[in-house]
This record gives sequence, C-alpha cells and structure tokens, in this order.
Amino acid sequence: MKIRVGILGATGYTGAELARLLIPHPNVEIVWLTSEKFSGQKIYEVFPQFNKFIDIKCSSISKLKSFENVDLAFSCLPNGKSMHFVERLIQKGTRVIDISADFRFRDHGEYKNIYKVEHSCKDLLKSAVYGLPEIYKGKIKDATLVANPGCYSSSVIYGLAPVITDKLIEHGSIKIDSKAGLAGAGRAPVLEHQFSESNETALAFGVDKHDQKTEMEKQLSILSGGPVKLTFVPHRIPVNRGILTTIYSDLKRPVLIERLWELYLQFYKESYSIRICNLGKYPSLKSVRFTNFCDIGIGFQDDVYITVITLDNLGKGAAGQAIQNMNIMFGFPEQEGLTIPGMYP
Amino acid sequence: MKIRVGILGATGYTGAELARLLIPHPNVEIVWLTSEKFSGQKIYEVFPQFNKFIDIKCSSISKLKSFENVDLAFSCLPNGKSMHFVERLIQKGTRVIDISADFRFRDHGEYKNIYKVEHSCKDLLKSAVYGLPEIYKGKIKDATLVANPGCYSSSVIYGLAPVITDKLIEHGSIKIDSKAGLAGAGRAPVLEHQFSESNETALAFGVDKHDQKTEMEKQLSILSGGPVKLTFVPHRIPVNRGILTTIYSDLKRPVLIERLWELYLQFYKESYSIRICNLGKYPSLKSVRFTNFCDIGIGFQDDVYITVITLDNLGKGAAGQAIQNMNIMFGFPEQEGLTIPGMYP
Amino acid sequence: MKIRVGILGATGYTGAELARLLIPHPNVEIVWLTSEKFSGQKIYEVFPQFNKFIDIKCSSISKLKSFENVDLAFSCLPNGKSMHFVERLIQKGTRVIDISADFRFRDHGEYKNIYKVEHSCKDLLKSAVYGLPEIYKGKIKDATLVANPGCYSSSVIYGLAPVITDKLIEHGSIKIDSKAGLAGAGRAPVLEHQFSESNETALAFGVDKHDQKTEMEKQLSILSGGPVKLTFVPHRIPVNRGILTTIYSDLKRPVLIERLWELYLQFYKESYSIRICNLGKYPSLKSVRFTNFCDIGIGFQDDVYITVITLDNLGKGAAGQAIQNMNIMFGFPEQEGLTIPGMYP
Amino acid sequence: MKIRVGILGATGYTGAELARLLIPHPNVEIVWLTSEKFSGQKIYEVFPQFNKFIDIKCSSISKLKSFENVDLAFSCLPNGKSMHFVERLIQKGTRVIDISADFRFRDHGEYKNIYKVEHSCKDLLKSAVYGLPEIYKGKIKDATLVANPGCYSSSVIYGLAPVITDKLIEHGSIKIDSKAGLAGAGRAPVLEHQFSESNETALAFGVDKHDQKTEMEKQLSILSGGPVKLTFVPHRIPVNRGILTTIYSDLKRPVLIERLWELYLQFYKESYSIRICNLGKYPSLKSVRFTNFCDIGIGFQDDVYITVITLDNLGKGAAGQAIQNMNIMFGFPEQEGLTIPGMYP
Repeated sequence: MKIRVGILGATGYTGAELARLLIPHPNVEIVWLTSEKFSGQKIYEVFPQFNKFIDIKCSSISKLKSFENVDLAFSCLPNGKSMHFVERLIQKGTRVIDISADFRFRDHGEYKNIYKVEHSCKDLLKSAVYGLPEIYKGKIKDATLVANPGCYSSSVIYGLAPVITDKLIEHGSIKIDSKAGLAGAGRAPVLEHQFSESNETALAFGVDKHDQKTEMEKQLSILSGGPVKLTFVPHRIPVNRGILTTIYSDLKRPVLIERLWELYLQFYKESYSIRICNLGKYPSLKSVRFTNFCDIGIGFQDDVYITVITLDNLGKGAAGQAIQNMNIMFGFPEQEGLTIPGMYP
Repeated sequence: MKIRVGILGATGYTGAELARLLIPHPNVEIVWLTSEKFSGQKIYEVFPQFNKFIDIKCSSISKLKSFENVDLAFSCLPNGKSMHFVERLIQKGTRVIDISADFRFRDHGEYKNIYKVEHSCKDLLKSAVYGLPEIYKGKIKDATLVANPGCYSSSVIYGLAPVITDKLIEHGSIKIDSKAGLAGAGRAPVLEHQFSESNETALAFGVDKHDQKTEMEKQLSILSGGPVKLTFVPHRIPVNRGILTTIYSDLKRPVLIERLWELYLQFYKESYSIRICNLGKYPSLKSVRFTNFCDIGIGFQDDVYITVITLDNLGKGAAGQAIQNMNIMFGFPEQEGLTIPGMYP
Repeated sequence: MKIRVGILGATGYTGAELARLLIPHPNVEIVWLTSEKFSGQKIYEVFPQFNKFIDIKCSSISKLKSFENVDLAFSCLPNGKSMHFVERLIQKGTRVIDISADFRFRDHGEYKNIYKVEHSCKDLLKSAVYGLPEIYKGKIKDATLVANPGCYSSSVIYGLAPVITDKLIEHGSIKIDSKAGLAGAGRAPVLEHQFSESNETALAFGVDKHDQKTEMEKQLSILSGGPVKLTFVPHRIPVNRGILTTIYSDLKRPVLIERLWELYLQFYKESYSIRICNLGKYPSLKSVRFTNFCDIGIGFQDDVYITVITLDNLGKGAAGQAIQNMNIMFGFPEQEGLTIPGMYP
Repeated sequence: MKIRVGILGATGYTGAELARLLIPHPNVEIVWLTSEKFSGQKIYEVFPQFNKFIDIKCSSISKLKSFENVDLAFSCLPNGKSMHFVERLIQKGTRVIDISADFRFRDHGEYKNIYKVEHSCKDLLKSAVYGLPEIYKGKIKDATLVANPGCYSSSVIYGLAPVITDKLIEHGSIKIDSKAGLAGAGRAPVLEHQFSESNETALAFGVDKHDQKTEMEKQLSILSGGPVKLTFVPHRIPVNRGILTTIYSDLKRPVLIERLWELYLQFYKESYSIRICNLGKYPSLKSVRFTNFCDIGIGFQDDVYITVITLDNLGKGAAGQAIQNMNIMFGFPEQEGLTIPGMYP
C-alpha cells in the first residue's frame, strides 16, 4: 500500500530532508510540493542532488485549492503561517504533520505569549497530538494532526524523560546548554548565517529567552506530574547539522549511575531510535548525522548528574521524527526508511 | 540469495564506507572484518554510528587462514601490502575486489616504477580486470579479481571518456586540476591532516608527480586507441569528502557544445550513476556527497573545452564503485544499495 | 606626519579589513566611514572586534558633501556605483584608491562590455593608475586616482610577470585554475553563500566567463608587449579567506627550473611582499592569511610549467594592496603596517 | 632596551603563537628555540608563514647547557616534563614563564593527584606566581617564575572574578560549559584530531573530570575567601582557535543586572584586555580570534545568572597572556605587542 503525500514549504532544509527520506520510502508517493521562492521550478533544479530521483514541479501555496487530495501533508511552513494551511488541509480530510511550532501548545494564550501571534485555529489546537513517538505512540496512531516537536526540545525530553518520569530530578536545578548546527536556522539568507560570518566562530543566542524553552518545560511537566522550570541556552557552532545538548541537574537523592543506566535502557527498550551509550562514553554529532537516532550518554561529575544528547536537527529533530510519526499514523513499520547509520566521516 | 563477504582493512575510511553500504544490502552478509589497530574490538566500538547495525569483532589479518570462507572479499589494505593477501584469498577460491592500486596495471614494471615495490603476483596481474563498471561491465561480470580504480582516475576517465573515445581531444593538451577532501588521504594520523593544519587552507600536492597520473594515462590511452599524455595536479581543500576535477583541453576541430552534450548523454545512456548536467550548469560536491554518482558539466571558454566532474572519493571513487562491481559480479541489480541522493545540506 | 582618510563602504569585508590595517597605522587618522545598511551605528557595533579601537559612527554616503575633507579616500563601493563618488571626491581635491573595478580599464568600451554599465567618468579613466605596486610604483607615487587590482588578477599577474615579461610563455597556452574563499564574494546575504550551502562543498563558477579575465589579459599583454589570451576558471572552496591559483602553461623553449627560479628572485628582489618558495615547495593559504604577502611556487610536470600562487583576497588581493599603494602615494615606508606573518593555525 | 628570550618547545601551537607575537615586539630579541621533532630545521621551514621574519634554527633541548644565557625563557613543554628544564634555567638565573601546568599549584600533593607525576621541584613550586595579570600584576612584576594559567581556567576566572570576589555567587551552584577549538588540543598528530574526524562534529570530553577543574576551584577559592566547588565540562567544536565558556550560577541574593554590569566595569577598569559587552549582547569567538582580549557578556535567564566568555585559547589563554606577563615582569608597557583587533572574518 502506498499513501499519497504533499509537502508545504518543500524548498527549505526540512523540506529537502523530508523529500530525501520519502523518495525511497516503499509506502509513499509524493504528489505535490509547494514553494513560493521556487514555484514553477522542478525540485531537482532547486536541489540537484535529486536529479534522477524525483520530477515534480514546485507550486505556489496560493493554488492549494487545486491540488490533488493527499492522505497526508507535511507542513514546513514558518511559525504563524503554517496554521492557516494546516486548517484548510484538515478541512479537506487530509491528515497533517506540522513541523512548525503552531500546534505544539494546547493553550493558545501560551502560544501567543511566545510567538506574538494570535492563534487562528484554537479548536484544532486541542486535538493536536504532540509527536514524540517514543512517548505518545498510542495517540499519534489515531491523530489527524500531529505537532512535530522542536529539535532542541526533542533532545532535552529524550535526555531527561526516564529520570523526570521517575521523579529523580530537582526541578529547579536543570541547566541546559545546546550546541547547534546552522541548518537548524533555516535556509533564508541572513547575514549572520553567511559562511564567512558563521565559520571559525561560536556564540550563544537566546540567553535571555528562546521559543522552545516553554515547550520543554511544558512537556517535562507532563512527564513529571508537576511544574518543571529549567534554564536553556542554545549556541551556534559551525557544523551543518546536528545538536549536542549537555544537561546539568541535581538528583533529589543519591542514585548509582549503573542504576540510572538500567533505568534508561528499560525506558527506551522498545525505542529503536534511542541509543544509550555504555557508561563512560558520550555521544558525538558524528554518529547521528543524517539519521533518526538520538544518542544519550549519562554520568556524574561529583554529585551533578550530566546528560549528553546528540541528534540531527533535521533528522530526529524534524524530518526523521515526522516520518516516524507518519509510519505510526498509517500502520507502516515504525522505522521504515529510517534505518541508516550515521554518515561518516 | 545472499553472498558472504569479508573486508580486509575495515577500520579505515574506505572500510567504514563499505560497511555502511553493505549493512543494508539485501544480498550480502558480512562475515569477517580485519583491522590491525583495532583487532579484538567490535566494529561499532570503533565506529559508534554502527551501534545497533553490526556486531562483528575485528580480527588481525594474521589469522586469515582461520577465517571462514567467503564468496567475496574487499581489500582496503595499503598499496604494496594488499597483493599478498589478495593472492592468498584467490588461492582459496574467493573472488576479490581490491581497492588498493596493486592490480591496476598489467605491466609489473610500470607498477614497480610508480610504487617502488616489486610486484609479487605477476601472473595474477594479468587476469585482473580494471573495475570501471560503466566501461568494462562485461569483463567485470566474470572476473575473479577486480582492481577498483583510483578516485582521481575515476573522475578523469568519466569526464573524458566520451570525447576521448571519439578521438576529439588533442592528447597533449589535457590539463587536470583536482580538488579533494581529506578523507581521501586516509585515516592514519598525520600532522598535515590534523584539523588545525587542514582547516582554513588549501594547497597543491603532487605538482611534480602523482601515482594516479599513469593510471589515467593508461586507461585513456586504451579508450583513445593511442598514447595519451596529460598534466595532473591534485589539491587539498578543507572538506571531508569529495573530489571536484576541472579539465582543460583542446579539441582537434570545432564541435558545437550541444553536439558534445548529446555525445555524453548517448555514451552514458545506460549508466545510472553518471549524471550529465544541463548545458550552462556545473556540478558541486554537494550533489554527490555520500553517493555513487558522478556528475559531469561541460562547456567552452572561448575555444578551450572545459569539463567539471564531481564524485565522492569514498563513494564512486572507492567503496560505492566497489559495491557496483560486486553487484555486477554476482548478478545482483547493478545499483542495489546505491540509489540514495546526495546528502544535503 | 598623519594623513586623514575616509572609507566609502566601510561595512563590507574589504572595508573591515582596511579599518583593521589602518587603525594601528602610525601615519593615518581615520576621519569618516560610510555605510548605507549600518548608517548611524558606531563601527564597533557592526564589528565588535573593533571595540576599544575606533569610535566612529558610520554615515550615509548621501551626506558626502558635508564630510570633512580628507587627504585620501578608499572606495569599497560596488562596481558601477563607485565611479560617481570617486569623481566627486577627486573634484574636491581628495586622492582616491578605488578598490572596485571602475577604473581598471583605460578603454570605456571595454568597461561597458564587461560590466554592462556606461562609464560616467571617461576622462578620469585615462588618468587612473593600475595599482600593482611591485610593477607600477613610480606611477602610483604621483597618482591622484589608483585603481586597485582585482584579487584573482593580482595572483595571476604576480605569478606570471617574470616569465611573461621575459617572453618565455606561449600566450595561447595559459590555463588558470583559481580556488577562492567566501569572503571574496562579499558580505551581502546570498543563498549560495550561507554556511550550510557553502560548507562541505566546492564548485566552479565563471566557467563561461568572469569579469577579471579581461583585466588579466589586459595587464599581461602590457607586460608581454603583445596580446595575451588565457583561460580562467575560478572555484569556490569553503575557507573564509584566500586564493590559491594554479597556472598551467607552455614555455616557448626549454628552460631549466633553476634558471626560472633565479628569474623570479631577480624580478622581485625589491618586493618585500612577494615570497618565492624554494624549488620543490609550493605555498598554502595558511602562510598568507591576513597578510599582504603573495607566495609563489614554481615547477614543471614533464614539459608543462606550473605556477602556484597564494594570497589573501582581502589582503594582498584588496585592502593590503590598497594600504601599500597609500604608503607609496604619501611617501611612507612602503610596508608600514603590513609586516605581520600569516595567521596560524 | 631589548631583552633576550628563548622558547622551549617552539614548534607546537603555543610556541608558534609566541614567535608570531614576539617577532614584532620592539623590546624583544629571540635568541634560541628548541624543538625535538624539528631540531636542525629553521623555524621558517617548519612554519612557512615566518619566511622573511625570523631565521633561527631549532635546537634539541638536550643541548640546553650550551645555549646562550637569556633574560627570559618561555616553556611550552608538556606537563610533567617542563619543570625539569624550568628548574635548570632558573638555576642559571633566567626568569621563566611556564605555560605548562607544572607550577600552577602550590601544593605538590595536589599536583601529583591530578597529573599523576611526582613533582620534582617542590621548593620552586612555592615561589611561582600564578600569572593572571589582571589580578596578580604586583606579584608578577617581581616574579622569577610565572605559572601561566590554563586556557579554560582563564576564561572562567575572568568571567566570575568580580562576582566571586564580591561574594555574590552560591558556590555550589556553578556549572561551566566550555566549547573549545582544536588548536588547544596540541599539534601532535592524534586520530581524534584529524580533519575528517573533527570536522562536522562536536563532543563533550572530560565529563567525569578535567585537569583544569581543580585549577579553577583553587583560584576562585582564593578570590572568594572560601572553598569553591564547581562543575566543568569542556566540549570540542570544529574551529581552529578560541574558547567560548558559558557559566550558569545562582546568586545569593537578587541583584539588578545593571548593578552587576557596573561591578564588572569597575573591577576591570584598568584592564585593557578585558572587554565587557553592553547589556543584552554576548561575545562570539570572532571578536577575539588571534588576540589577547577576553570578552564577557552577562545576563539573567529568570533567576539564573549567565556569563558568556570568549577568548583565544592560544592568545589570552596562552601565548598572549604570557607576553602580557613578560611585559609586566620587565617593565614594558603592559599591552606592548598585544593591541590588535580580532581577525575577521
């Protein structure tokens, strides 16, 4: 069986990654792609790496009405813009995986607070399922609308879920330091992301605040059964892809590292895409580049509990995660199309 | 049907790339891996990206005698060392694809001349087939021993084959300028290839001479039906993977670029892995990274014929090519395991 | 003695490099800086590396009339735009070093041919001096208007001047392959120059033609005393700064490499900023980054004469060269402010 | 007045940086350089960027006895090896700045504990001065032996000194996350630091422990007047040079950020090389590359106090710092040779 899918905003980095993963997927046929900047161009003209693989012309989203019906649409549109088109697709009976942040919060007040935009589909907001497949597989299966998690949030939630769920962490103690590659910042040309500006440097951004902080707090609070507050500072480092997150936290009571390691193995025992490093080992970006894996290493420095997490911000942090959600929604093998090792070197 | 394969020298970059490509290959079971530096270690300890994918321990090549028989062995051993083990495997009845340079020349004098080592298997030399599948598919099919071409040579031969075969090029006029990523230089630690030495720089090496120059001349002479002399200067640029080769040559007589373009399309019409760019377009490394594609763009600057070729030195320039040869040798679909688009961004 | 200088277009890469070099220059006081995008901002807000070094506010060029008179202005404005402001400054009695291409050609028809713009200061064109200090020092000394050479052209002219002047080169045989860092492409945000697009790739641009080709041909023809035709293909490689140019040419008659090496040493014996590598050695970008040096290595591959040249496209290829011209114009020691070794690693 | 200096271990990265900074220094003459790997070679053969700048041959340290006496020696020898030669030089009456860790601890037990080597010059240990010029200028002035601080430690001490000295920080709360470039890891070839291994990745090392943690704790305890415990995790990112350190800590009582900012300005009001960013701004590596600056940005995220510090690990973190110490020791202007802006882009 093959489902028919469309991609809104196909010529950004997440769109390109979705296309790369969907092209060889045995259960998927790509039917349409939208792009404003490149509408009218074949997708392989925009991305020459797709030459010989896919022969679809990008259309402007303004012609959405005339598009063929599809079983599933992915939205890679910007925050604040995505919701309008998601709503229209759902009204047509299309299931949607929204990779923007537009449906990640149940509370529209919270959304407005962060994104400074009034939410226009408040009802839909309630029915959206947060697409973290290792935790919400059951709900995702039947969802009409899946809100794909943020890339930083995914790294943090995977890194802390076992210990947060087990109520082992002092909530006020969590300090999160993320280092992220440039592709996560999007494909629109910006001075700060020019090669000569980004190469041979590093910087902290979002010291004062960052969108995904509330997303993390929200989701960890649900797992914890109580309000979680945390500190989160993302940094830019000169790599194309990947997030390395280091989390510093205090445990409520002493626990042996071996015990925690068992806890993680147990928590993720059915989760193909989460790999727990052996004790004493910590993951690098290298092992997860271009994959749907999230690698986790844990340890103590004196009494401080340290979690190091790596994932690909376009893979497990966006498009890979979305495909995994799709597989669950349509009853395909959960890891279909997602079982390649990290690209090295 | 599954064949059983072994890899000699599995913990270098070509070995890692072979493993990455063979792991998901439906017709292959990896049986043994050798490594001197990492013998006794599991391959996923050496390369954490293989965690959950392959669970084989690396053995020292000194125990070759005790290894299980396999249908095919790949040798990623260094030049001058490979031939000894290739010979022993062939005596055991194993077919071999040798990625070293040891069997690329029919003439042992020539080999000695370049590699400064007496060839120890002169008979075997004669039966080896040069593994350029787009050109020698027929011979590769039945070969016991395939000599996988050099990465620079592959880019040059693919770039010139149509016009050389058609006798359109002035032989003395060929100037070849290659720009290559670091992975092609191997995984053994060397001062020149340390990050801080290689990053933010570029340099020419092999101005005076380079091993693969003779290989190119030899192979182009065969295609041309007469002796080809050329100038070849490889350069190091700070990317992990990929070769971009620019070739400057004179035509014997004026030919329209459209006519040449047709010639290339025709020449490679059965060659899935060779992609000819539209006129006015030239390939980048981006489109071929981690793939078995070779992209070619052609044009004129005034009367000078310019060919720009990109391929991945570990892919179409080594491991990908080897897998394609394997597919041909064992009657698998020629592109099995090799149909993924370039990794971007 | 201190001269007073202004910089037109100070917030691009060449402007920033000029400021860096002029700040510690003992004979210079920077008086004004123009910037359209950052007008009203202090230069150290635009470039935090200048914090504690310079405290000037950028002004819009539209207020040029109100600027204080200066002894010298540098123009880093874009081609086609620079000439208008250069003319106005010269009318005010200011000497000008123009880093754009606007005054590099004596013949306005040629200029129009390349830059597709009618030249508006045809008279000025005739009085401009081509600012290659190693060759035209005498004229630069007294010039009112110096046209700073292009970065690629500089590398080529320095690389070939001794042998071209000596009429040793077959004019039709010259093939030039340049590899250039991103900063040379300017600071305006462009998709192609975003980090994720430029990193881990390389490509040829200007296969069919490039602005500076005619500049090279023109200048080499002057040195040669006869028309020089050449082939020039620039490539983009992922480094911030630097150009590595490889030139392939035929000699008219056999000459020993030792003889050529002496010729170069002799030709450049008074030129501090030209360094000739020992025979068998070729330069890397590393040795010239952030400097005003041009390093040259020469050799043969069979009968083909190979010249490898490195310089920093913002240094000897632009701002460094301009400062050297300034030193000559105002009678300062020629290398004042330009005697630092390459930044390593 | 010119002093005569020697460098032990001149062909590593710190040695090269010292040479680069000492060459143009008006008060210094370099007299000898040692290198084991390159002994007998001219320093400009090892580092071609020094061509035309310095013409000294590297000698083996085994000939130390025969070296001319110098006023000052810098030791860039490895930890555990440096002390032996430092001692011999001091016995000859030479003042020494030791860039290794050998004299950073007063307590030889502590030293042994960290570096697993018995200290062989216990008396000398007591007289060594910790070379943090912004804080210990008075002692450095008269010191015979200066122990140059670690690069990570420098970033941390500068970042916290004002608030630690003022007893504003909860000692147990300090979490330090450093991101460091490859040059800090040294010039000896190591698999992990090969270009293809280090490029396009990032990783945490020293999660469990790191040498410099104790150094930081020790120094902050002195400033604080009480024992300081902290958590420190260094990370490797793919840049040549620079450290970006992010520190998360709790204040003992609420303080306005404006008040803290004033505190920093006040604390460093005589310190040319410490630059405090305007509120709301945080430093990048770009602004400090190749300099002796340390840039500091401060802010709050909710109640957590966040300090972001950048410095060049070879500059303010090693060689630049050492030159500043030299200037103080010999009564030269403190910033002589150290007043260049960050290299950009």
